[in-house]
Amino acid sequence: MLARKNILKIKPYIPGKPIEEVKRQLGLKKVIKLASNENALRPSGAVIRAARRAVLSANRYPDGGCFYLKKELSKRFKVKPGRIIIGNGSDEIIILAVKAFLAKGEEVIIAKQTFLIYEIASQIGEAKIRYAPLKNYRYDIDAIIRLITDKTKMIFIANPDNPAGTYLGKREIERLVRSAPRDTILYFDEAYFEFAKNMKDFPDTMKYLGRKNVIVTRTFSKAYSLAGLRIGYGFSSENIIECLNRVREPFNVNSVAQEAAIAALCDKAYLDKTLKLVQNGKAYLYEKLGSLGIKYVPSATNFILIDVGMNSKTVFKRLLKRGIIVREMSPWKLKNFIRVTIGTVKENRVFIKALKEILQK
Amino acid sequence: MLARKNILKIKPYIPGKPIEEVKRQLGLKKVIKLASNENALRPSGAVIRAARRAVLSANRYPDGGCFYLKKELSKRFKVKPGRIIIGNGSDEIIILAVKAFLAKGEEVIIAKQTFLIYEIASQIGEAKIRYAPLKNYRYDIDAIIRLITDKTKMIFIANPDNPAGTYLGKREIERLVRSAPRDTILYFDEAYFEFAKNMKDFPDTMKYLGRKNVIVTRTFSKAYSLAGLRIGYGFSSENIIECLNRVREPFNVNSVAQEAAIAALCDKAYLDKTLKLVQNGKAYLYEKLGSLGIKYVPSATNFILIDVGMNSKTVFKRLLKRGIIVREMSPWKLKNFIRVTIGTVKENRVFIKALKEILQK
Repeated sequence: MLARKNILKIKPYIPGKPIEEVKRQLGLKKVIKLASNENALRPSGAVIRAARRAVLSANRYPDGGCFYLKKELSKRFKVKPGRIIIGNGSDEIIILAVKAFLAKGEEVIIAKQTFLIYEIASQIGEAKIRYAPLKNYRYDIDAIIRLITDKTKMIFIANPDNPAGTYLGKREIERLVRSAPRDTILYFDEAYFEFAKNMKDFPDTMKYLGRKNVIVTRTFSKAYSLAGLRIGYGFSSENIIECLNRVREPFNVNSVAQEAAIAALCDKAYLDKTLKLVQNGKAYLYEKLGSLGIKYVPSATNFILIDVGMNSKTVFKRLLKRGIIVREMSPWKLKNFIRVTIGTVKENRVFIKALKEILQK
Repeated sequence: MLARKNILKIKPYIPGKPIEEVKRQLGLKKVIKLASNENALRPSGAVIRAARRAVLSANRYPDGGCFYLKKELSKRFKVKPGRIIIGNGSDEIIILAVKAFLAKGEEVIIAKQTFLIYEIASQIGEAKIRYAPLKNYRYDIDAIIRLITDKTKMIFIANPDNPAGTYLGKREIERLVRSAPRDTILYFDEAYFEFAKNMKDFPDTMKYLGRKNVIVTRTFSKAYSLAGLRIGYGFSSENIIECLNRVREPFNVNSVAQEAAIAALCDKAYLDKTLKLVQNGKAYLYEKLGSLGIKYVPSATNFILIDVGMNSKTVFKRLLKRGIIVREMSPWKLKNFIRVTIGTVKENRVFIKALKEILQK
């Protein structure tokens, strides 16, 4: 066999079919996608214009240093450009961090269950994974702290978490930061930051950057509506950023994404609109789920983990037949759960109507 | 120190400044970029329209399986979709191959000097690199075959080569394929394939795919004019493709690039125009360089390696002052060489005029 032994242990990625194919096969005219925690709104006019302008220069390589985007982020977050990294999605920064810092056999602490990429990246890197179980669908800081040994090289914290949608507060994060050894990297994945930042007690992890063992990453895929373009960013010490740069491809971030991201950062009205849509949609879904007696996990994000009280694969299939795609949670060992992205007003209504019919059958 | 030890041995990537910054700093109004082997023409109208359409759906994740692009490639090259991989540039496929197949300490054979990513990816993977020197600016198949041991896991062949621009013919490739053990992966990087495919004796490596130890990659960055969007593709056995998929990010290729690539494949007139521009430009440059008594390496690509007969850094700086950016080859230990991309008719003329002035000073 040609491959490295450990590679064969990784669960192969089986790509889903594109929506157009699903439609064709099921004979559906319209499909509502509430499966991937995307923004229900297309990008703003300003962002579309910037992206389209960039398309005209597609014959040229992108700026490998993401000079102007870093400049804009630097200004907004008061962090020097040398302490910023841009990734082909923030997923890529997770993978780069494992590549740069986790040697074979070194330990990494990951919650169980959480965002899957931490585990996949660590398996590829042949790190030893120690799993910290969730407690009531929340990261359990005590469980994490108990797992720290002198071999712990990295700890992944999704805050807010995906798929649970819950978050850790200021004091929990403070406790973790104080308990972690200085040579253990604390990786805060804040992909859903914009939705959570005004929650009571949501921590400001940027204030820990000075400790030099902290990485904070965020994305343009969710609140900024750029999932299709692949772009995310991270902050850390200059030293850590330099190490991440050594293991990344020189032209990892395409030029259309760079231009769109700069325009997106500057469009506060669009961000406000998105946050309002999610807030109102969440209130609507909470109310309807509550009145139907359906349990859910209160969320700090743009999605909700819902306990449908029966096999989620069945519910998934029945929703799909009605043209609604959600995420069924059996790969996360949550067999009675679906994860539903908050959609437009109309999409939320269609979803609730369908779910009601399915569960009352 | 936090990083894995070997990471610190890798030469850090120092991003160049964007052209706009160079202009500002040097007070230049116009800059001609002949440094990165890009297509001198912007993408065709059909490609720009397809890319711009895709921008409208940027809120949605890209198709992680690149279904439609693989379908199009499959039809054209008569290779099943399961034997195709799409990368964030073909650079990414090189990195994935090292990740999937090269364990620490295993041997990889790389020419010296050639495309730098093979070396960087292998260093990150902690593989043992064995270097095969070029002979008269060409890959030396005998030198490569001599380096093969029972530990050789992979051999990188850039055909045509970058930065030399030379290529290996049918018999040389045949000899290599026959000499390589069945569990040694032969990685043919054909980024400049379209420019070379009609050269006398250029090999058809696709015919070796059945041997199950061959990877062939190509790119949309050069002849197809999509460097800014980041997209490349590769063919191999189903088994190898599955291993590469296990180590790639699920959403590695953005949606704008996928749509643009499909449109680009369908636009034969544009490709012909590009190939003609390069062919005519090359003839012009050969003639002018010849009449100025400047030596160069005949090229099967869209760039030319030129022996300027003096320190290339000096020539680089003097060209830059005149608003012309080329690549100076000292990082490749070719201290008297510059690498110049073939530009538009006007760009080639401006370059020759400037080079003449500089060298005759």
